[in-house]
This record gives sequence, C-alpha cells and structure tokens, in this order.
Amino acid sequence: MSVDVLEEILHPKSVAVVGASGNPMAFGYSYTSHLLDYGFRGKIYPVNPNYPEILGIKTYPSLRDIPGSVDYVISCISAARVLDLLEDCSQKGVKAVHLYTARFSETGREDAAELEQEVLKLARKLGIRLIGPNCMGVYYPREGLSFGYNLPKEPGSVGMVSQSGGGASGFIHLAGMRGVRFSKAISYGNALDFNECDYLDYFAQDPETEIILMYVEGVRDGRRFFDTLRRTATTKPVIILKGGRGKSGTRVVASHTASLAGSMQIWESLVAQAGAIPVKNFDEMVDLAVSFYFLPPILGPRVGVVGGGGGPSVLSADECEEAGLDVVPLPPEIREELRSRGVPIWDWIGNPMDVSILGGFGFSDVDMLQMMADNQNFDLMIALMNESVMMTLSRREGMIMRLKGAVEGYSKVKKENSKPLLTVVGDKSSGIDYDDWSLKAISEARTRLIEAKIPFYPTMGRAARAAKKLVDYYRERK
Amino acid sequence: MSVDVLEEILHPKSVAVVGASGNPMAFGYSYTSHLLDYGFRGKIYPVNPNYPEILGIKTYPSLRDIPGSVDYVISCISAARVLDLLEDCSQKGVKAVHLYTARFSETGREDAAELEQEVLKLARKLGIRLIGPNCMGVYYPREGLSFGYNLPKEPGSVGMVSQSGGGASGFIHLAGMRGVRFSKAISYGNALDFNECDYLDYFAQDPETEIILMYVEGVRDGRRFFDTLRRTATTKPVIILKGGRGKSGTRVVASHTASLAGSMQIWESLVAQAGAIPVKNFDEMVDLAVSFYFLPPILGPRVGVVGGGGGPSVLSADECEEAGLDVVPLPPEIREELRSRGVPIWDWIGNPMDVSILGGFGFSDVDMLQMMADNQNFDLMIALMNESVMMTLSRREGMIMRLKGAVEGYSKVKKENSKPLLTVVGDKSSGIDYDDWSLKAISEARTRLIEAKIPFYPTMGRAARAAKKLVDYYRERK
Repeated sequence: MSVDVLEEILHPKSVAVVGASGNPMAFGYSYTSHLLDYGFRGKIYPVNPNYPEILGIKTYPSLRDIPGSVDYVISCISAARVLDLLEDCSQKGVKAVHLYTARFSETGREDAAELEQEVLKLARKLGIRLIGPNCMGVYYPREGLSFGYNLPKEPGSVGMVSQSGGGASGFIHLAGMRGVRFSKAISYGNALDFNECDYLDYFAQDPETEIILMYVEGVRDGRRFFDTLRRTATTKPVIILKGGRGKSGTRVVASHTASLAGSMQIWESLVAQAGAIPVKNFDEMVDLAVSFYFLPPILGPRVGVVGGGGGPSVLSADECEEAGLDVVPLPPEIREELRSRGVPIWDWIGNPMDVSILGGFGFSDVDMLQMMADNQNFDLMIALMNESVMMTLSRREGMIMRLKGAVEGYSKVKKENSKPLLTVVGDKSSGIDYDDWSLKAISEARTRLIEAKIPFYPTMGRAARAAKKLVDYYRERK
Repeated sequence: MSVDVLEEILHPKSVAVVGASGNPMAFGYSYTSHLLDYGFRGKIYPVNPNYPEILGIKTYPSLRDIPGSVDYVISCISAARVLDLLEDCSQKGVKAVHLYTARFSETGREDAAELEQEVLKLARKLGIRLIGPNCMGVYYPREGLSFGYNLPKEPGSVGMVSQSGGGASGFIHLAGMRGVRFSKAISYGNALDFNECDYLDYFAQDPETEIILMYVEGVRDGRRFFDTLRRTATTKPVIILKGGRGKSGTRVVASHTASLAGSMQIWESLVAQAGAIPVKNFDEMVDLAVSFYFLPPILGPRVGVVGGGGGPSVLSADECEEAGLDVVPLPPEIREELRSRGVPIWDWIGNPMDVSILGGFGFSDVDMLQMMADNQNFDLMIALMNESVMMTLSRREGMIMRLKGAVEGYSKVKKENSKPLLTVVGDKSSGIDYDDWSLKAISEARTRLIEAKIPFYPTMGRAARAAKKLVDYYRERK
C-alpha cells in the first residue's frame, strides 16, 4: 500500500541534498538550511563536489561518497543528471527521491517528456519512489522537513496536498499568519510516481491530520480520484482548490505541471457529489482552513453581528445575507432583558448591533455578544472590530485601549460559551506610509484572538461566506 | 442655488465647536483637535461653560459670549438643546450648523422624530442651513476641516458623499493607505436639510473633484436623485455603494439614518441606466477609487499578467478570466523576439508569465512586462508581487532585495510607457506575530509604487474586477 510506503518515506533517518549549494539564492542552499532551521534530528548530507562544507556541515562530492545508508534524497540538480542520480541512489539504499528538479514534461517539449518517462521507468526498476518532479516536496514540521523560510515550526492538524509548490509555501505562510498550523504538506508537481490519489489516501488515514486542503490542476485518473475524495470527505473536511478553470488557466496548467485541466462543469458536480468543499482561490482556502481549525461545528445560519457602527453595520447585514446567513431580528427576550437592565435604547438596538449608538449607557457590544451567545436564537456570532474606523476615532492611546478592550471582551465571551465566534480584523492598515504602532497594536490584537481560539477574517464578506460553507458542511453531515 | 450656498458654507472664516470637551474620548474634543491638527486657518471657538480653555484655546461659556461673528458651528451637544442653540446661532450670524448631535428620527421614536422636524422648521425660519443631524460632517483637508484622526492632510481629487460617518472616516483612512487623496468628503446622516442630491450637485460642479464616491442608504426624492446622478455621471465617474440591500440591512438602515431603503432591483437598474458604477462594499469602493485615481483609461479587456509563478499564475489566469478580462495568448512577435534574444524557453513562456520557470536566462518578469507594454495586443498589465511566496523563498535580505527589484522594474516600465499597470501586493503579512522588517519592507514597496503612480491591490481577483469595471466604463463613454 502506498499509504504505508509514504509513512515510511516521511520519517527518514537521513537526508541528502544533492546539488546543495553555498549560494543563499539557490534552492540547494535553502533545502540544506531548512533541515537545520526546522530541527531535522536525523543525519544531513549536503552533496556537491565544489564545497567542502555548506552551512557548517561536511559536504560530499557525490552520493556514493556518503558513509552508510541514505533514506531520502532531495534532488536540486538538473534534469539531465537525474538518471545517474537514481543509479547512485540505488547503491545507497535510498527509499525515495524528491525531485525539486524541473524542466521535464511541463516544458511541452518531446525530449523532456521522454526523459521524464525514462526517469520513472528506472526508478520503478530500482525500487525507488519519487515525489515530483517539478515540486517543492515535503513540509513536515514535526520531523524538521520544510520547503520554505518563515513557515510555522510548531505542528498542527491541517494537511495539504498541492500540485503547486510556490502556491503551497505562500499559502502555508499566509495561513500561519492567520494562526493555522500544519501536520504536513506535500507539493507534488508533475505527479510522475505518487499522484494526488496516493497523497489523498495518505492524509485520509493520517492520524496527525484532521483537515485536508488540496490544490490540484489536473488528475491522472479521474475515477480513482473521485472515489478517494468521496471516501475521504466522509471522515474529514476536504477543501479543494482547482487551478485551470477557464481557457487561459488551462493553457497555463499545461506549461506548469503538464496536467490536463478538464471540464469545469463536470469537475464541480463531482466535487459536490463527493462532499468536498470547493474554493476559488488561496484567500478563500485560508478562510475555510481557519474556520475548520478554530471553530466548533456551526449548526445553523442564524448570525448575530456586533461592532462596526452605522454604515459598516448596515453593510455587515447585507454581506451576511448575501452570503446566505440569516441575520435574525433581536429576539423579544433580549429586548426585555435590556429594558430590565435599564438600557434606555432597548427598543432601538438591533441585530447587527450598531456600536455608534451606545455611548453613555454602560452597555457595550461585548455585553450584547454575551447575550447572543447565551440565546438559542443564534447559531453563531460575528464581531466586527473595524480598526480602520478606530484609527479615525482616537489618537494612539485611545486606539490601543479600544483594541485591547475588544479583544478582552471577545475572549471572555468565548471562554464562557462555546458558540462559534468569528471576528473581522481587516488588513486595512497595511498600506503605504509604514506606521509601526498601529500595525503592532493590530497584530497584537490578532495574536491574542488566536490564543483565545477566535479566528479573524479580513472582511465581513469573507467571514460570512466561510461561515455559510461550514453551515452547509455540518448540515449535510447531520 | 444650494451649490453656491454649500460652497460658501465650506469656506468658513470662523468655526465654533459647541459642546467642546477636554476629555480625549469625547467628540467635542476630537472636533476641536482636528481644527488644530489639520491646520484650519480661521478662528476657532470651543464652547463649553465648564472649561476656561480646551487644547490651549480660550473657551466660551456659550455661543453668545464669542466676540464677533461665527460662520460655522459644529454641534456636539444633546438633541434636546439644539433648538436653543439655533436661536443663539441666529444671534451670531451663523450660516450653517453641522449637527454631529444624534438620537433624532433614527431612534424610531415619535418624540425624537417630532423634535427633528421642529429643528428643521426653526432653522428654515432663521435662515440657518443644516448638515446632518446624526453625521460626522465635513472633511476638507485644503481648508483644515476634518472628522477623524489619521486622515490624509494633503488634498486630492476624490470627493465623497456618505450617509454614514463611521463608514466615511474608516473609508478615507483605508483609501489614504492605498494612496488616494480627497478634495472633500461630506457625511450627512439623516439628510434633514441638505440631502444627497444637493451634495451630488455640488460635487458634480466642484472643480476640485474629479471622481465622486457615494455611500447611500436611502434617498428622499428618487426622481431628482437619478436625474442628478445621470447628469453627474456623464462628466465624472460616480462610484456608488448602497447600504441596506436585503431585508436585514433594510431593517438596520431604518435605525441608522431613518431612511427607506427601497427595492434593490429598481435601484440597480436605475444606477446602471444613470451610468454610475455600483459596488458592494467599501473594499470594492477603494479598489475603484484607486483605479480611477491612478490609472489612465483602460481601453480594452486584453490583459498581460506577470509574476506569481506556478499555481498563483494559473489562478491569476482563472481570476482574470472570471472577472471578464481576456488573458490573451502571447503574440507570435513576442515569441520571436524572445527567440532572437536567445531566451531558450521562448516556446514555453506564456501569459500569465510564470516567473518560477525563468531561472538562469538573464530574462525577467520586468522584461516581459516591458514587452507587453510595448505590444498592441495588450490593453493593460497586472504584475503579481506575491510577497507571501517571497517570504518563503529567502531570508530577510533576499526578500528585501526581491521586493526592491520588483518595484524598481515596475516603475521603469511605467515611466517608459503609459499603458495601465496594476500591481498585486497582498495584505498577507499582516497577521499575528508582529514582524517588523517584513511589514516595513512591504509598506516601503507600496509607498514607492504609489510614488510611481502604480496602484496596488490586495488580491488578483480584486485587481481584475476593478480593471474590468474601468474597461466597461470607458467603453460606454466611447
């Protein structure tokens, strides 16, 4: 079974980087450096005849010169030299080669495609398994494997299978900044040996993985893929992003991973039938990943919205409704409670709750959030922090105080009630004219929210659309 | 004519803040402070019987105590005291009162609505014009008037009419961070005296305003509004955001500005007929504002895309196509030129141009951008900076170098050719775990782009959708 083979491959005791380099702009440098940075505990062997050592590690002229056996090879050499490398690998008992090496069939050239097939044939003959070619390989923080700088070092429960390497590494960075942590991610490029079905099978049974993300441009065996997808989606949420949806994207897919993109109509209906969750881009994917990662099941569409004030409250209602959520009116029992607590605008307050009308009553948006959390008419709440408006309402100290107050309040509500709570903290301050204190304050607020397991989203629309997909997901599973 | 009256009102020689305050959390403090911060050159009179001075300015117990005349009053007192204030205003020759004061008809209460009508009646009798009530009033950086902290002090050519004050101030901050500068913005709340048509008429003829933005929840006189809109839209782009589109939004509109939201179907068709550009939220509005502010006319949908690499290139093609742009294949003359310049992958490179396949040929995405700019098969170009991927490709110095190189390259292309150039620089780094150097580097890159008059957008989809609206706008005007 490829599942067991992959499990073994993903736990190497020694890794050789063939084509390692001392030049920080080369990938042969990066891969060596990642093994150190991410704390790989096995043996590390850089291979390059031109360096006695790289990053302080003894470097070997060739794979054959390494004493003892090698489990896993990262190949950063040119395509023309891969066949020779495989012969060397066979000598050293290598189980798997990750071919970062590219310029095979994706070039659209016949000779390159033929070479790719020869590589596959030889690997099969020698009993060596291949990841790639034309891919970033494996990010597995628990084991100290990585394919990028600045990715989270702590492990988590999100697994990713991606046909694109840059897509995957950029995504993991992005998702990391939203608080998501990964079990492992595999970028697989041209899928010459292991393909998307093998990886999906692997993540389906992987006990370290609870949520699966896929970026796919084309599949080799549609029938097997959708069977695998259906089976997998019954046990774990599978969020799937298809690249190459239109005619120009399809054209690019061919030159990227030599895949056939296929018909979008058929794709979409098969994904839906399989029970996977389709998304359109990496931003939507990160919203879904964050939602499944941090939120308990959302059992219905009835949303309570607080924060914002004025126009932003009105637009929040519009965007929630357009996303398919139900912005229910404030139930009578909440109005009664407001009245009995002496809030003079008990009859005026609504859902969304406009914070701009609250001044001077000792009643806050957090109090309302608490009441919504405790009330059975709401399935989820979204709190709009609206830091762009905050920036215009007060000077530095006032803004910092407002942000802190909001985060503390949300955290308290979350602590006392498990009802799904989403927050909207825009990316709005990241523009021109670098402004240290406000970015620092907003980042600090976000960090505190994530510590409290409260996810944040850059816009109300994105929060609402992600929430609606969770509602649909859990509804179908009931 | 209300246009001339408004022009006079917007150039006061003296401003009194009635209900001024020494408490930094009070709006009576903010409005006083804004006059100082934004450099109002006329006389400033804080009014409050409890302070001898506020922010170092002599403060008067009442409006009547001010020596000489007062042109413009900002009212921060409670609704119950507004009738008395108007009598005082009449004594001092006040031309206009901005009623920041709220809790009138928007509360849904009969007595408050009646009081609002009395205020109108008295103001008419006394010949005093009203902005508001329940609004933030005027932001006019040229004159030193503002309604928020941290808004741009330099003037520009974008005018804004907004029924929501928080919406307007948050938006101006947000748009400011994207490089947009404003002629003036007016938040008008309940539109008791001047209404949306008066303001639109004003901006239509205002020589300081080239682009008009509107946030509107409901209109008082639909016929006049759409006549005005149609007339205005023939001379300047009018970007219009409607709050209160669904049933819950409509409910909130009533409690926000006491407007009737009306039918969305009718609204949309009338906006389209009038030639205005509808948007769904403030994020889309800022993308459009940025596009009209920085870009020359976009004369067709044929887009050249560079940058990204791999999956992000594929998805860029998909998102451009889904937005209605035409991601045309690379024309034969560009391929020929690549071949003659000795680029070995001349037959493989495409549009979008995947930067990940470029290594080692001395040919860059900026070279391709230049060729697209010079080629008549492209109407516009979008460059994807993809800083999330950059963050994973190199350490600090490498990332800073990559960003700088990209910005310098784009700026050079822009300088040599006026063809519309958009860039995508995400907000992706503004997450948790505040990271000074990368945010600083990205902000620096954005600042340089804006100096080169190259707008940036947070996602490819948003850039593409904004570009398509400009294509449609200019096509209709041909």
